[in-house]
Amino acid sequence: MEQDRAITTNAPFGGVSLRKVEREAPADGQALLSTVETGICGTDRGIVSGALGFSYNPAGRDYMVLGHECIARVASADGEGLRKGDYVVPATRSGGGCLNCLVGRPDNCSDNDRHDAGVTGKDGFMRDSFVYSTSDLVKVNDESVADVAVLTEPMKNVMKVFDSLSHITKLSVYHGKDGTLRSRRALVVGTGCEGFLFSMMASDAGYITQIVNRHDISERQKRILDTFDVDFADYSRPGALQGEGVDLLVDTSGDPAALLGMLRHVRPNGVGVCFGTNENVAPASMSGGDIINIVEKNIVVLGSVDGSKKHYMDAVRQLSAWRKCRPDAMKQMITGRFRPENTGILLARQPGEIKSVISWQ
Amino acid sequence: MEQDRAITTNAPFGGVSLRKVEREAPADGQALLSTVETGICGTDRGIVSGALGFSYNPAGRDYMVLGHECIARVASADGEGLRKGDYVVPATRSGGGCLNCLVGRPDNCSDNDRHDAGVTGKDGFMRDSFVYSTSDLVKVNDESVADVAVLTEPMKNVMKVFDSLSHITKLSVYHGKDGTLRSRRALVVGTGCEGFLFSMMASDAGYITQIVNRHDISERQKRILDTFDVDFADYSRPGALQGEGVDLLVDTSGDPAALLGMLRHVRPNGVGVCFGTNENVAPASMSGGDIINIVEKNIVVLGSVDGSKKHYMDAVRQLSAWRKCRPDAMKQMITGRFRPENTGILLARQPGEIKSVISWQ
Amino acid sequence: MEQDRAITTNAPFGGVSLRKVEREAPADGQALLSTVETGICGTDRGIVSGALGFSYNPAGRDYMVLGHECIARVASADGEGLRKGDYVVPATRSGGGCLNCLVGRPDNCSDNDRHDAGVTGKDGFMRDSFVYSTSDLVKVNDESVADVAVLTEPMKNVMKVFDSLSHITKLSVYHGKDGTLRSRRALVVGTGCEGFLFSMMASDAGYITQIVNRHDISERQKRILDTFDVDFADYSRPGALQGEGVDLLVDTSGDPAALLGMLRHVRPNGVGVCFGTNENVAPASMSGGDIINIVEKNIVVLGSVDGSKKHYMDAVRQLSAWRKCRPDAMKQMITGRFRPENTGILLARQPGEIKSVISWQ
Amino acid sequence: MEQDRAITTNAPFGGVSLRKVEREAPADGQALLSTVETGICGTDRGIVSGALGFSYNPAGRDYMVLGHECIARVASADGEGLRKGDYVVPATRSGGGCLNCLVGRPDNCSDNDRHDAGVTGKDGFMRDSFVYSTSDLVKVNDESVADVAVLTEPMKNVMKVFDSLSHITKLSVYHGKDGTLRSRRALVVGTGCEGFLFSMMASDAGYITQIVNRHDISERQKRILDTFDVDFADYSRPGALQGEGVDLLVDTSGDPAALLGMLRHVRPNGVGVCFGTNENVAPASMSGGDIINIVEKNIVVLGSVDGSKKHYMDAVRQLSAWRKCRPDAMKQMITGRFRPENTGILLARQPGEIKSVISWQ
Repeated sequence: MEQDRAITTNAPFGGVSLRKVEREAPADGQALLSTVETGICGTDRGIVSGALGFSYNPAGRDYMVLGHECIARVASADGEGLRKGDYVVPATRSGGGCLNCLVGRPDNCSDNDRHDAGVTGKDGFMRDSFVYSTSDLVKVNDESVADVAVLTEPMKNVMKVFDSLSHITKLSVYHGKDGTLRSRRALVVGTGCEGFLFSMMASDAGYITQIVNRHDISERQKRILDTFDVDFADYSRPGALQGEGVDLLVDTSGDPAALLGMLRHVRPNGVGVCFGTNENVAPASMSGGDIINIVEKNIVVLGSVDGSKKHYMDAVRQLSAWRKCRPDAMKQMITGRFRPENTGILLARQPGEIKSVISWQ
Repeated sequence: MEQDRAITTNAPFGGVSLRKVEREAPADGQALLSTVETGICGTDRGIVSGALGFSYNPAGRDYMVLGHECIARVASADGEGLRKGDYVVPATRSGGGCLNCLVGRPDNCSDNDRHDAGVTGKDGFMRDSFVYSTSDLVKVNDESVADVAVLTEPMKNVMKVFDSLSHITKLSVYHGKDGTLRSRRALVVGTGCEGFLFSMMASDAGYITQIVNRHDISERQKRILDTFDVDFADYSRPGALQGEGVDLLVDTSGDPAALLGMLRHVRPNGVGVCFGTNENVAPASMSGGDIINIVEKNIVVLGSVDGSKKHYMDAVRQLSAWRKCRPDAMKQMITGRFRPENTGILLARQPGEIKSVISWQ
Repeated sequence: MEQDRAITTNAPFGGVSLRKVEREAPADGQALLSTVETGICGTDRGIVSGALGFSYNPAGRDYMVLGHECIARVASADGEGLRKGDYVVPATRSGGGCLNCLVGRPDNCSDNDRHDAGVTGKDGFMRDSFVYSTSDLVKVNDESVADVAVLTEPMKNVMKVFDSLSHITKLSVYHGKDGTLRSRRALVVGTGCEGFLFSMMASDAGYITQIVNRHDISERQKRILDTFDVDFADYSRPGALQGEGVDLLVDTSGDPAALLGMLRHVRPNGVGVCFGTNENVAPASMSGGDIINIVEKNIVVLGSVDGSKKHYMDAVRQLSAWRKCRPDAMKQMITGRFRPENTGILLARQPGEIKSVISWQ
Repeated sequence: MEQDRAITTNAPFGGVSLRKVEREAPADGQALLSTVETGICGTDRGIVSGALGFSYNPAGRDYMVLGHECIARVASADGEGLRKGDYVVPATRSGGGCLNCLVGRPDNCSDNDRHDAGVTGKDGFMRDSFVYSTSDLVKVNDESVADVAVLTEPMKNVMKVFDSLSHITKLSVYHGKDGTLRSRRALVVGTGCEGFLFSMMASDAGYITQIVNRHDISERQKRILDTFDVDFADYSRPGALQGEGVDLLVDTSGDPAALLGMLRHVRPNGVGVCFGTNENVAPASMSGGDIINIVEKNIVVLGSVDGSKKHYMDAVRQLSAWRKCRPDAMKQMITGRFRPENTGILLARQPGEIKSVISWQ
């Protein structure tokens, strides 16, 4: 047994500490990985604050290693074409026995027979090293993307949504009369890391894209968005929203008031994506008119969680392209790198934060 | 110019009267139709009561002929294979110039450049006879279905939803492990005519189907549902809902409290269909948890309005099959036949009503 | 152990005999079924003649009970909502361990780890009674369809194809400018039972439908087709094919000359379905021009075999509707009923045959 | 009127010459473009040799400017967000009046009411400058991709095919048990530019990819393929094909013998894409067994031609990513740059050619 430093919590009660944990040897079909960087997201902070009641420790334990966003290097492995030194991203969710899990889509798990690393009953990646099934590792072919590959886990959520959109938008003629999305509009609510990634992808897909929040953002954040032709607006100010309505709405806030308000701006045959979740937000009033809006315009509201390994692979490809084509903007997405000892970073969002990461090497 | 009896209103102010209106001669590409029966739905009563603000008269007129549910016979026609005496159902909506209308899908109209007979700017079918474009007539091949074919217009809405469902449910493994829907559950909210048709279709498609309302229904209504293996429950009573959750929810009530409440019972990868609309219903509170439910379960909420001519044809076929296989139940769907003079029928829903119709011959 | 009469062969060598076979008692999850009727198709005759090299007996046996088209009654069962006396159709294929089989789609089996009753390694239904997994039985809700329900097995193939078509035709605007298939043309090659069922379904779906063969057909056959608005032509005669090209081609002949010849008549964005198979047919010459035709017109050629249990259920519904709406035509589809002793019926196609069946009761 | 050098032919008779042609001034909604590079493909050479009978000059003219693969710079434009100096790729096909053209999909044109620049009735881009509708120009956002952007036109064909594949592969469980294509195999027939682009894209999508031809290829070509993890084999040698069968076959040869031979290697639920065309190839014999293979394995054969403006945009994005991530390999795709005077390049394929281009500046 080896010993690792690890950042742990006691789910669902919360708390955070850096401690020593033991690490078993890899079995057949497993690889030993050295953690390079782990990202921090709202879920991690929710677990630490004790706000996420659905989180739980691995069976028979009074702690869980945190962390589900990770880039690591192979220390030893056989199979899956992996070699020592390869950069990999571990897929977070382990499937159970439902039909969706059996076909490699635990992101669509139809029961509760699955585990998410660092969240529900399975150790996460905030530790010096870990052992993982080789079939759950996604290789990063291009080493030069390693410095932003910690964004793969949040990005795979985006890839799943755009995959689903390619099917849902077949229900009608969704694109413009030139066959493209150049005349179509996307609106992303929320300026966290997921909001950034969704808006960058929407712009890339051809949409005229706006991202909004109820407060201003930093100059650094604005420059990144500018690089991707994404327009920002503080929608607490009158007239902030573009007037023509939107064809794609992505809510990353989980705020009912924001979702319901913005759905009224969705055009006929448009899609509203629910991605963000927030347990501690005020409820909002849904009227008969809100339903009429959805019905009369054939609007589809799509809830989407997680992504499959295919989406992790798509995410690596997309990040790699962006890392090369807009290197400065992509590097600016990592707004802070911290040491594992600095567990305070798990207690509160940093000013101007897009993605804070912990460096393990 | 001929003269017809017609039931008219003055949209959006409301009111109802039986009066004489003139009827022009058919032009090229048009047929002259003798109205057999017209159905009455909540939209008609909403217009008559002045509650539907979006309704308006044909341009330059101070009245509009009511009625969008109709079965008629061809009095004279050329083209489209129509012969005198053929039973036909007129498609309600006339398309405009948007891409969806251009490809024959005015039900997906992306602007407001279209008209709905008897609702928005175009005369309806509550009159002795009318002239209509032959390309907008759907032939009823089987004469023996004529006595329930007035249900075609409401039924085409159902066919569009199930058409959309066949695509949306490809986003995951939706069916059971035997490849069918026999282990899947459908819940229909609302016991009006649309609720009945949706629940009958869901049961036919293989779902274990329950229809609910907040009050009891008549014995006649229960017998019809029983014929289609649809279970009824008064959900104002505790324990009325089956406990396992549902894979398909269809809301025909337009009531936010019902929609939000029932969405919590939808299982992972399930679909909630919004079909019903109601301007005069109390709002309901949507919480962060309601959004989390949609996100974490990959739920799709599908707004759906109207249907295309393809769906009218599908509806005729489906009604024809039901009329033959369950003749008594289908005939019981028409709960009352009234004379045109009896305009009071347009003022209030009848006790135990499923579908009230006006007989013009 | 009970004893049954059974019609057996020795696959792949062929031969046919009526003999006594033993029948085990049903285990948990199984039902005991009394065979009502079994249909005979080209596959049965191919096995009997020793022409189907892929056919094989159940493991360790020197014979196999023939028959995969069947309507039976429940003698005893528990589960799946089955009661004694219920009419059921057994699904032919038992799945193996591949992903498609695991999700209830053995019709899409990706390896060879499955069995087809009466064809490959599993006894068929040409016997007085048999034991079958209740989950593989499809209930015939409507008893009045029992006299044509032996067509369910061939019909489920048709339902799978139209299910696939609903997805494939989304690749372009496939329908006419009124949103329907009323201006679209279907051509079915081959006038066997499958050809009839495909053409009836195409006509029902709205296509202007023609069925062809290289010889004339009987008056009885023509009357059935006429009832379904299907046009017949002997395409060995000049000018037999309608000139405008077709949007849907279904080949049930398995003849390369027919397939290649007819594909040249398919219009842009059209679909050619390969359903029929024939090991003993002459090859045909495929030219560069044949490929150019497929490429330049975006033609999809769809191979389709078998169908899932969902498609059996769809088939029962469709047959039930037709049985009610066109009772005479449907009853005429069964061109002969024979006793089990008459095993000669398995040696050669009958004159004017659409479907010959063996009556077991 | 300005004068341009232009490379012209007299379709369908053929021939090639560099001559002076007049160039009109741009009208409203049009841009003036300076040609940077034009690519040469087999279609150009086919027209020049008089082998493409379907090619024809613009109405009333005895010549046509050649060239449909082009990268150009904006000399003057208003609208579509274009500025002087922007790099753009012109979309080749101008739509007509069919439903597919009306919705911006002339690549799916259902009649013959359209024109392809440099091929059918419309001048191409092998000239110093040209005037084009701004709505038919696809902007190259990233200038550093300009040196390979002449590949956009051939690449858009690839993007359309993969777009179609994402829908067709929903007919079954197509991916592996980890939800990805990492265990799936692709085989590309033909080592021309399209073959290279298809194989590079297949590998990128996750397939284990092999490209084959009946002869060896150059070291330079092998190095490019190696960069994309694509395996090459000369399939005229025994044992060249990998033995496990393939899930995706792409034929760029248009050779019936190759297509039929390789389709026998396609696995259940696999897809065979027909992209290549060849009028002057020997026919091949298609047997009953070839059809049985397609039927029993549920194989889909997909003909695909051209691509929509969306696919041009996707192509620019993909090329841009590759240009950045594998710069050397991508630059090596352009195997020769020639002056317009060197019209001999249009007469015969160059040794080791992937893409020969004509530089106009």
